[in-house]
Amino acid sequence: VSIICVQEISSLSSPWSWECINEACVKKETQPGQEEKAISLEACQIFCSEESGLWPKPNGVINVSKILVPVDPSLIEINTRRLGSLTSEAAKLFKEELIRRAPTARDVGDKGKPLSINIFHTEPDTDKLTLETDESYNLVTGIDDKGKLQVNITAPNFFGSRHALETLGQLIIYDDLRNQLKTPIFLNITDKPAFPYRGILLDTARNYISVDAIKKTINGMAASKLNTFHWHITDSHSFPYVSKSRPQLSQYGAYSPRKVYSQKDIEDIVDFAKVRGVRVMPEFDAPAHVGEGWQKTGYVVCLNAQPWGTYCVEPPCGQFDVTKDGLYDALEDIYGDMVEQFDPDIFHMGGDEVHFTCWNQTKSIIAWMAQKGWGREEEDFAKLWGYFQDTAADRLFKKVGKNIPVIMWTSTLTKKEHVTKYLPKDKYIIQIWTLGNDPQISELLEEGYKLILSNYDALYLDCGFAGWVTDGNNWCSPYIGWQKVYDNKPKSIAGSRINQILGSEAALWSEQVDSTSVDSRLWPRAAAMAETLWSDPSNTWREAETRFLIHRERLVRRGLDADALEPEWCLQNENECPIKKV
Amino acid sequence: VSIICVQEISSLSSPWSWECINEACVKKETQPGQEEKAISLEACQIFCSEESGLWPKPNGVINVSKILVPVDPSLIEINTRRLGSLTSEAAKLFKEELIRRAPTARDVGDKGKPLSINIFHTEPDTDKLTLETDESYNLVTGIDDKGKLQVNITAPNFFGSRHALETLGQLIIYDDLRNQLKTPIFLNITDKPAFPYRGILLDTARNYISVDAIKKTINGMAASKLNTFHWHITDSHSFPYVSKSRPQLSQYGAYSPRKVYSQKDIEDIVDFAKVRGVRVMPEFDAPAHVGEGWQKTGYVVCLNAQPWGTYCVEPPCGQFDVTKDGLYDALEDIYGDMVEQFDPDIFHMGGDEVHFTCWNQTKSIIAWMAQKGWGREEEDFAKLWGYFQDTAADRLFKKVGKNIPVIMWTSTLTKKEHVTKYLPKDKYIIQIWTLGNDPQISELLEEGYKLILSNYDALYLDCGFAGWVTDGNNWCSPYIGWQKVYDNKPKSIAGSRINQILGSEAALWSEQVDSTSVDSRLWPRAAAMAETLWSDPSNTWREAETRFLIHRERLVRRGLDADALEPEWCLQNENECPIKKV
Repeated sequence: VSIICVQEISSLSSPWSWECINEACVKKETQPGQEEKAISLEACQIFCSEESGLWPKPNGVINVSKILVPVDPSLIEINTRRLGSLTSEAAKLFKEELIRRAPTARDVGDKGKPLSINIFHTEPDTDKLTLETDESYNLVTGIDDKGKLQVNITAPNFFGSRHALETLGQLIIYDDLRNQLKTPIFLNITDKPAFPYRGILLDTARNYISVDAIKKTINGMAASKLNTFHWHITDSHSFPYVSKSRPQLSQYGAYSPRKVYSQKDIEDIVDFAKVRGVRVMPEFDAPAHVGEGWQKTGYVVCLNAQPWGTYCVEPPCGQFDVTKDGLYDALEDIYGDMVEQFDPDIFHMGGDEVHFTCWNQTKSIIAWMAQKGWGREEEDFAKLWGYFQDTAADRLFKKVGKNIPVIMWTSTLTKKEHVTKYLPKDKYIIQIWTLGNDPQISELLEEGYKLILSNYDALYLDCGFAGWVTDGNNWCSPYIGWQKVYDNKPKSIAGSRINQILGSEAALWSEQVDSTSVDSRLWPRAAAMAETLWSDPSNTWREAETRFLIHRERLVRRGLDADALEPEWCLQNENECPIKKV
Repeated sequence: VSIICVQEISSLSSPWSWECINEACVKKETQPGQEEKAISLEACQIFCSEESGLWPKPNGVINVSKILVPVDPSLIEINTRRLGSLTSEAAKLFKEELIRRAPTARDVGDKGKPLSINIFHTEPDTDKLTLETDESYNLVTGIDDKGKLQVNITAPNFFGSRHALETLGQLIIYDDLRNQLKTPIFLNITDKPAFPYRGILLDTARNYISVDAIKKTINGMAASKLNTFHWHITDSHSFPYVSKSRPQLSQYGAYSPRKVYSQKDIEDIVDFAKVRGVRVMPEFDAPAHVGEGWQKTGYVVCLNAQPWGTYCVEPPCGQFDVTKDGLYDALEDIYGDMVEQFDPDIFHMGGDEVHFTCWNQTKSIIAWMAQKGWGREEEDFAKLWGYFQDTAADRLFKKVGKNIPVIMWTSTLTKKEHVTKYLPKDKYIIQIWTLGNDPQISELLEEGYKLILSNYDALYLDCGFAGWVTDGNNWCSPYIGWQKVYDNKPKSIAGSRINQILGSEAALWSEQVDSTSVDSRLWPRAAAMAETLWSDPSNTWREAETRFLIHRERLVRRGLDADALEPEWCLQNENECPIKKV
C-alpha cells in the first residue's frame, strides 16, 4: 500500500517550488537533487512575511519561527480540563478541520510530530458574549524534551481561546510537495480585537436563506474572527420566523410552508454560532418593513399599496398602525419568543425607512392623532414614531427582565432635531447606513452616541448588480471591491471620537440574493472588514493583498464559495500583477 | 404509513393559492371548502400566459391546454426504438430529472396517469452537431382511449428531439399544494432555433475550473437550449490541458498537478455535453495569450515581461516567437491531440490582443524580419502574424484531414486593411468582442464575413467586479444586468445582414472567477441570451420578466447556483414590483 501511495504522489509532483526573497515568495524550478529542500507555496507564505499570512493580522506581538516541522494529524491532543463544553466542542471542531484539510496526510503521519494543545482560562468561564467580553489570547508553541510540540493557549475565557485556535489553525499549513501538515517549531502571539462589535447582517426576508447557508456564513465569520450574526429575520416581503406564540404570522407570511425558521432551526443556529464565538442578534424591524404575515391582524396598513413609490422605498409597502393597542401585545409576545430563543445581550429594533405618507393617508391614524391634538407635520409623525418606539422597547425590556442596549438604524428619527428626544443615548446604539461622510455621523458622535458603522458606500455587499424594479443597475451601484471595504477605517470616519465606535457590520440585503449566492457576495469581502475591526491596521489594502488572497483560499478550503479575486497566477507570483509605473 | 404522510402534507399546507386574472397569476387566500380547486403557483404559470412559462419561448406554434392532469413519475415510458444511444441516454436523463424534481411525489403516484413518450427521427441519425444541423422538433401530447398520456416527438434528428424533451420537462410541473407532478392534457408545439450558434465561453486558464463546475455549466446550457461550449482552455497564465504528445506543457504550465484536464476528463466532458445537445469547441489561443508551460521550449517570448503594461494587456505577458519552425511542429501535435479528443466541426484559433511591441523588442524576430526585407511598421507585423496564422491553420487542417471553419477574435488583424488579406472569409468566422456599435461590425458584414457576437457591453459576464491589478472596478464595469443581455438582439446589431450572424456567445473570462462562482456569474444571465438566439423575440425584457424568474427557479432546481434576481415576493405577486408611473 505504501508503495502505491508514494507512486501516486510522485506522479503528481510539481516542478515548481518557492523561495523567500525580499519578503516575497518567488516561484523557481526545483533543481534535480534539491527536492528535499524545495519549499511549498503555503510553507513559504508562513515564514516569508511579518504577519505569517495570518488574517486578520494579530494586534500585538507576533513572533513566529522560520522553521516548520511536520505534524501528525492523528496525534493531536487538546487538553480542555474543566473548561466547559463550549471549549471542548471548539477543540473538536479544530481537529476535524485540520483532518479535513489534509485528507491523505495520515498516510505519511508517521513522519510527523505529536501536537499537544493546552488551554487555560484566567477568568470564571462564561458562555455569553457581550460588548464587554475580553476576546484576547496568548498563543505559544514550543517543543518539549520528548520532541512533542506543546501549544499553550491562555485567554480570559472561551471567546478568547477559540480565536487562538483559529490563529493556530492558520499556522498549520498543508505542504502539497510532501503531503504533510506543518507548523512553525515555535511561536508566540498575543492578540486582541480593536473593536468589540464585528458583524455581518443577513436579510432572510426578501429572499429565504437556508439554514445550511446561514451556517456557512457563521463558519466564515469564525474563520475571520467576526463575532456578531445580525439576523434581519423579517420584513414586509415575508415572515419566515415561526413565533411560538403567534404562529399565524409565518403561516401567512412565509414564502412557503418549507421556507420558515422553526424553533429547532433557530436553536440549532444559535448553538452552532456560539461554539464558533459568534452571537446571534435578532432584528425585528418596525414600525416599517412589515407586511406579509400580518394580513389577518389588522395591525399593518398600506400593505402592497400601489404605486409603491408613494408609500415606501421598495415593494411591497407595509407599516404598523402604531395606534392599535393590540399591536403591542403581539410585539410583546414575539419579543418574548425571541428573548427565549436568542438570549440576546443586545437587540435590534430596526426603525428604518418609515414613510410618513403612509400614516398620513390612513384614516384611523389621522383620527387618533387629531384626538391627541397633534398636527400632521414631520414633527408630529416623529412624535407618533417616538410613541411606538418607547412603548415597544418597554415591552421588550419587560420580556428580557431588564434594559439591554437597543440598536436602531439611522432614519428621520435619528436626525439632530429628534434623536435626543426619542432615542436617549443611554438606551440606544445607532447603526449608520448612510454614506461614510454623512454629517449625521459627527452630530451623533458629538451628542455622545455609540455607533456601529454600515455605511452603504463601503459595507453594503449587495450593491452593484442589475436593477430589479427597473433596468440598469441597482440603487447603490457600483459593486464594492474588497479594497474599498478594507480602506473603510473606523478611525477615518470617527476621528478623535473613535471610542464611541463599537465596530462595523457588513450588510447583505437579500432582494437579489438567496441561498445560492450568499457565500459569493459576502466572501471574501466581509473578511476585509474583519481585519479593519480586529487589527485596526494603518496600512492600505495594497500591503494586505497577498495575505488576503491567502485568506480567500482558506475560506474556500473551509467549504465557502468565496469569490475569486485574481488569477491564481498572482497568488503564485507575488507582486507581479499590480500595475507598475514605467 | 399513508395516514402519517397525509398529516405531514397537511401540516405543511399553505393558505395561499393563485388565480389567473388578465394573464397574470394573482395570489389569493384559499377559502375553506375550496382546497380541491386551489391552484398552485407553478400550475397557474403554465396556463396563464401565452408562452406557458417556457424558456426560451418556442419559435413556432404554441398550443397548450389549460387543463392539467397528474402524472405518475414511476410510470413514464420512453420509446426510443432503434434511435441510437444518444437518444436513449437523453431519455434516461429526462426521467431522472423528473423524479429528482418531485422526490416524494411517488407517494401519491397512484393518483397520476401513466406517460408514454414516443420519439421519431425523420432523417438518418447523426451524433455530430454542425452549423447545418436542423435542431427543430414537433411535440404533441394527447390522451389515448386507455386514459394514458401519449407524447409524440418528431424531429429530424437527436439534436431536435432532445430539445423537445427539454420543452416537455418544462411543461411537467410540481404542484406543491398536492405533491404531484402535472402536465397539460394536450399540447402541440413546433419549434426551431433562429440562430445555429448559441454559445458560452468559459476560460479555464486564468483560474482553473473543476470538471464538475464545467458539467454544471453544460447542464444549464442544455436547460436553456444553448448548443456550444467554447472552451478557452489555455492562456498565458496557465496551461491545464494535458496534451498527449506534449505533456511537458501542462506539467510546467498547470497551477498544480491536480489542476489539469486529463484525457479522461475531456472525454468525460465531451460525452456529457453531447448527450445534452452541446458541442465542445476548443480554443487554442495564439500567437498571444501563451506563456506558462512553454518555458522549456524557447517558443514563447516576453514571458512575464515587466512592466507588463508595455507588452500585454494583463499579467503575465507572453507571445509565440512565430519565426521558430519548431513551434509549428508543436502546434501540429497539440492540434492533433485536440482533433482526436474533441472531433471539432469548427475550431477556435483565438488571435486576440497580439502586442507588436513584444515582437518589436525581440532580437531574433527583428533579425528574421530584416532578412526577409520587411520593415517594422504595423503592416509588417500584421504580415508576420498573417504568416503565423496561415502556417498554423494549415497544420490544423492537416490534422483534421480537411478544412473546417476557423473562428478568430476581432483584433488588429480583422481591421479593414488587413482582414481580407490574411483571414479570407471562406476560411474564417469572426467573433466580435468589441462594442455592439463598433463600426468594424458593419465593415466585416459588408465584406461578407460570418460573425458571432460577443460584444463586451452586453455579453462579457465577468464585468462589474473589483479591479485586480489596481483598486476601483474592473475594466468593463458596470455589471451587465440580464435586461441588457436580453435586449442585445442580433437584428439590431446586424440589420439587413442578419443572415451573416451565426449567433452569439456569452463569455466568462476567469480572472476573477473559479469553480466557486461560475454558476452565479453565468446564470441566469446566459439564459437571457439563449432566448434572443432561439426565439428571436421582438418583445423587450419587461414582457419576458415573469418567465425569466420562472426559468431561474428551474435552473436552481437543476442544481445550478443561479443568482437570485428579485425578492421571491415578485415571483409570487406578478407585475406588482416594477416601478409604476403615478
